[in-house]
Amino acid sequence: MSKPSKPSPLPPSIAWRGDAEGCLLLLDQTRLPHERVVLEINDAEGVADAILRLAVRGAPAIGVAAAYGLYLGVRTQRPMSGAVLDCAREVAARLLATRPTAINLRWALDRCLEHAREHGSVESLLTIAQHLHTDDQKRCRLMGENGWQLVPKGGTVLTHCNAGRLATAGDGSALSVLFAAWRHGARFEVIADETRPLLQGARLTALELHAEGIPVQVAPDSAAAGLISRKEVDLVLVGADRVVSNGDFANKVGTYSVALACQAHSVPFYVVAPLSTFDDQIETGAGIPIEERSPTEVLTLGSKALTPAGVGARNPAFDVTPGGLVTGYVTEVGILEPPFDRAIKAALESSR
Amino acid sequence: MSKPSKPSPLPPSIAWRGDAEGCLLLLDQTRLPHERVVLEINDAEGVADAILRLAVRGAPAIGVAAAYGLYLGVRTQRPMSGAVLDCAREVAARLLATRPTAINLRWALDRCLEHAREHGSVESLLTIAQHLHTDDQKRCRLMGENGWQLVPKGGTVLTHCNAGRLATAGDGSALSVLFAAWRHGARFEVIADETRPLLQGARLTALELHAEGIPVQVAPDSAAAGLISRKEVDLVLVGADRVVSNGDFANKVGTYSVALACQAHSVPFYVVAPLSTFDDQIETGAGIPIEERSPTEVLTLGSKALTPAGVGARNPAFDVTPGGLVTGYVTEVGILEPPFDRAIKAALESSR
Repeated sequence: MSKPSKPSPLPPSIAWRGDAEGCLLLLDQTRLPHERVVLEINDAEGVADAILRLAVRGAPAIGVAAAYGLYLGVRTQRPMSGAVLDCAREVAARLLATRPTAINLRWALDRCLEHAREHGSVESLLTIAQHLHTDDQKRCRLMGENGWQLVPKGGTVLTHCNAGRLATAGDGSALSVLFAAWRHGARFEVIADETRPLLQGARLTALELHAEGIPVQVAPDSAAAGLISRKEVDLVLVGADRVVSNGDFANKVGTYSVALACQAHSVPFYVVAPLSTFDDQIETGAGIPIEERSPTEVLTLGSKALTPAGVGARNPAFDVTPGGLVTGYVTEVGILEPPFDRAIKAALESSR
Repeated sequence: MSKPSKPSPLPPSIAWRGDAEGCLLLLDQTRLPHERVVLEINDAEGVADAILRLAVRGAPAIGVAAAYGLYLGVRTQRPMSGAVLDCAREVAARLLATRPTAINLRWALDRCLEHAREHGSVESLLTIAQHLHTDDQKRCRLMGENGWQLVPKGGTVLTHCNAGRLATAGDGSALSVLFAAWRHGARFEVIADETRPLLQGARLTALELHAEGIPVQVAPDSAAAGLISRKEVDLVLVGADRVVSNGDFANKVGTYSVALACQAHSVPFYVVAPLSTFDDQIETGAGIPIEERSPTEVLTLGSKALTPAGVGARNPAFDVTPGGLVTGYVTEVGILEPPFDRAIKAALESSR
């Protein structure tokens, strides 16, 4: 039996091709793990579509993609210099409307508009998009360095959904911590929740970890609580789509169940997220809009119908976990610990 | 657009064809919901295989199927009258080894052996199998009648896996309660957890409820906690594979997560199970053997690989929920309430 070969490194989730015109390159995540298709996108509508159908996904990644989308949209319309900001506002509104839960989308677009207000040129929108791109890479690296010592040597880490290279423009959030630990010589195993309905854990997280040689096993989402109760998990690391003032956070649906099981069995539960994911304009998790996606994602897999004809489905893409279940937030400025209201306020103020 | 037609009634999960030789008919549940294939089985090995590959599944159903399997196995071997019991013991051991978690398998085989000890003939094994078959139907009916008033009128009931007609020889356990409520005129909606990896909720529960005209929506298992936290669920009803002395119970993997969410949000969580599912030889849930099934069930769907090549999977088929999270046990002798140790002891003693 031949040993399965190590997969070749993945193309980056997001890249800018800086030739004469320049275009955005997105690795189509809907085709992974079996096909590697890089989309060349030249306008804002293409970016909006890629975000909507999850060709690019993950809170930090959609923020960076939207920033490039804003530049592409304004470039297409070639407004007179005075009208750049108006045009940018219109394009930003279109991009912002794609997905409601992850705050990074608004965060990135707000920064782009602020930059356009100061500089006024179409080209300034490319500058800020490229800045946000490298900025996200830096944040990912810092989260990894700040969190890696949490990883128990010889232990097992469980993660939910994909908070890796494919969810950011850099090394990931939760997975950046694992990559950093592995680089520092820690050895451990990972259980990746498969993350129904779109299987970001089975398709994407497993792919990223396997490509680095980190031992990973996929498990049905429903298996996490039992594994945690039987002491088969030493640490849980997840990403986030929005963290609010009191420490509640939204993340991929199923995260809340994992957090409840961790609380019941005293397993540390850390959220890894850059400050661009923190939203201090909302007090509690009850205020976070939860996207409900198409029932088709639940009812079918590829072209295969999973259910009898005539049956519908619920498909909330996210859930909210109360801050009380979170052990700590690993950010680019350090690990925030309870009480989160004060820690989050201080971190956001110091970073402004 | 044409209205989807109501599906025709399903064949029974288990039937005995009482012609000259007689054979066991099992509706192949692996082929549902898209194909209705009835297996004709003439020997114990065929029954063991059907149980192993989940052509027949659900704790009470595998008990009844195994009882018929025992008769078929002994019939095939045609032992001399004195050797019937020895032969039956051998066949029973083979059948018992198929699946470790559901206690009904052992419960049914023990009853068959006891009956063979008293009566000594090959035919007596058919008599007892048929008795257990109708006995299970009666228990299902009684669970339905005992539990139906729990169903909140106009409310939403969530269930996990399939505890219906396909999991028993009768109307089901948890679903029998819903069928009874519907017959009594209560109107409500159901959310069926899809129940990865084998999708018994999406394939089987949705099919059974839809066939009765009960409104049902499928949801990813991971969505249950969020729906419960947002007050979209008024009652949870599940079946069980084994309930032990202190009130802990094993059921399809994912049940524990649902129970934790119910506790966190004060949603009533009832287990519906006949006394044949109760095992007073084990003190706590920690003693229940948990079957780990093939990784292939998680890694593929039909012929489609869901994960990158070279990645493994965890696939525990069950988990254990502590009795402290259970509001009550709906049984054929009434609803058992905490403290469960005493209630279970009393119920089992009164039924012997």
